[in-house]
Amino acid sequence: MQDAVIQDRRPFVFINCAMSADGKISSPSREQVRISGSLDRERVDALRAGSDGIMVGVGTVLADDPHLRIRSPALRSERKNLGLPEHPLRIVADSMARTPLGASVLGEGCIIAVSASASEERVATLSRNAQIVRAGESRVDLSSLMGLLYDRGVSRLMVEGGAELNWSLIEARLVDEISAFVGPMIIGGRGAPTLVDGPGFIRDFPRLELRSIEAIDGGALLSWQVL
Amino acid sequence: MQDAVIQDRRPFVFINCAMSADGKISSPSREQVRISGSLDRERVDALRAGSDGIMVGVGTVLADDPHLRIRSPALRSERKNLGLPEHPLRIVADSMARTPLGASVLGEGCIIAVSASASEERVATLSRNAQIVRAGESRVDLSSLMGLLYDRGVSRLMVEGGAELNWSLIEARLVDEISAFVGPMIIGGRGAPTLVDGPGFIRDFPRLELRSIEAIDGGALLSWQVL
Repeated sequence: MQDAVIQDRRPFVFINCAMSADGKISSPSREQVRISGSLDRERVDALRAGSDGIMVGVGTVLADDPHLRIRSPALRSERKNLGLPEHPLRIVADSMARTPLGASVLGEGCIIAVSASASEERVATLSRNAQIVRAGESRVDLSSLMGLLYDRGVSRLMVEGGAELNWSLIEARLVDEISAFVGPMIIGGRGAPTLVDGPGFIRDFPRLELRSIEAIDGGALLSWQVL
Repeated sequence: MQDAVIQDRRPFVFINCAMSADGKISSPSREQVRISGSLDRERVDALRAGSDGIMVGVGTVLADDPHLRIRSPALRSERKNLGLPEHPLRIVADSMARTPLGASVLGEGCIIAVSASASEERVATLSRNAQIVRAGESRVDLSSLMGLLYDRGVSRLMVEGGAELNWSLIEARLVDEISAFVGPMIIGGRGAPTLVDGPGFIRDFPRLELRSIEAIDGGALLSWQVL
């Protein structure tokens, strides 16, 4: 959609998420928590509609089974009128091809990105309901994947988590913006997933620039540019 | 100072903290990270000066060795002109009396709250540099402690972490407000301390009401009332 590419051969990449006031994106038992309200969900739907691809990690597929499609019929019509597919591409980063065969994300317009270590049998089965893209040996090579997606026309990629994919993308310096809705609740928990998990940084913390803050749905919407 | 008591026999309690954009209050190796800027540090100093007591958990003493005193000479003078002690009381929740003898927090105006399980010897040694308050059997009973502090004239208590004390206070429903400066950086890390750790809630999440949002020091200052 927008031609906001800031680096050769990869899409403009932004993370969108809702977190509790203490930075958690789901409960300590990894169950989905309704953190945002209806205004934020509309905003997220519009962000999806303005993207060429929507990406999640396989952990999010296993935990939440998201469909990653646009809810609003009006937004879908708008896309069709522009000559675009009704929904953006749906991409799962899934090194070991663990996406369940009944996952809602599967179907026309779904890309499963696997590594060379994924079982051929699983890959063959998944390939009936998704396009398979291979990048990386034991884990999906996200930089290569970005190049492949860009070549397929994805110039604006929305990332909807989870905590581990966010980490991997940020660590690989592949994220341009982060939008976080900070919701009016406390979840707590040493083990609850946060906006960015992984091993974490111990120095050279990635710096952000605050682009906007807005009160919405009882919480705060913070938009950051990654420097 | 302010007579903002909302419940019998306990102070008005507010948590103040700085966290990264992903909710972390220190690095995965538990080292202090400078998240806030000079404006926020001035704001924190003023919050201290407006409190009767400042409380931390012993984990924070062990990790950061904070002095918990007011930095600004002007703010200290103001307090003296009002007939108040130069600094608020400094309180450590320290069930097992693990505060090191050389901790900066110790000295006149320091209260160490211990449980009945703390070693008598450690308590006796610490009592040379702090007042000892006992509440609870194996862990400090925070509700009782609040009553004891209130009886000693603490009607406004500032809590400066860490993640475990914040959890214990929130779980015990002893927190009235939370102020979080969300700083322009990513820390990441499954194991990095967040604003609220502990076991976490899996349902009946404490709800908050957003009181104010403000852009400051390149980040966002969010003030929440605990409902």
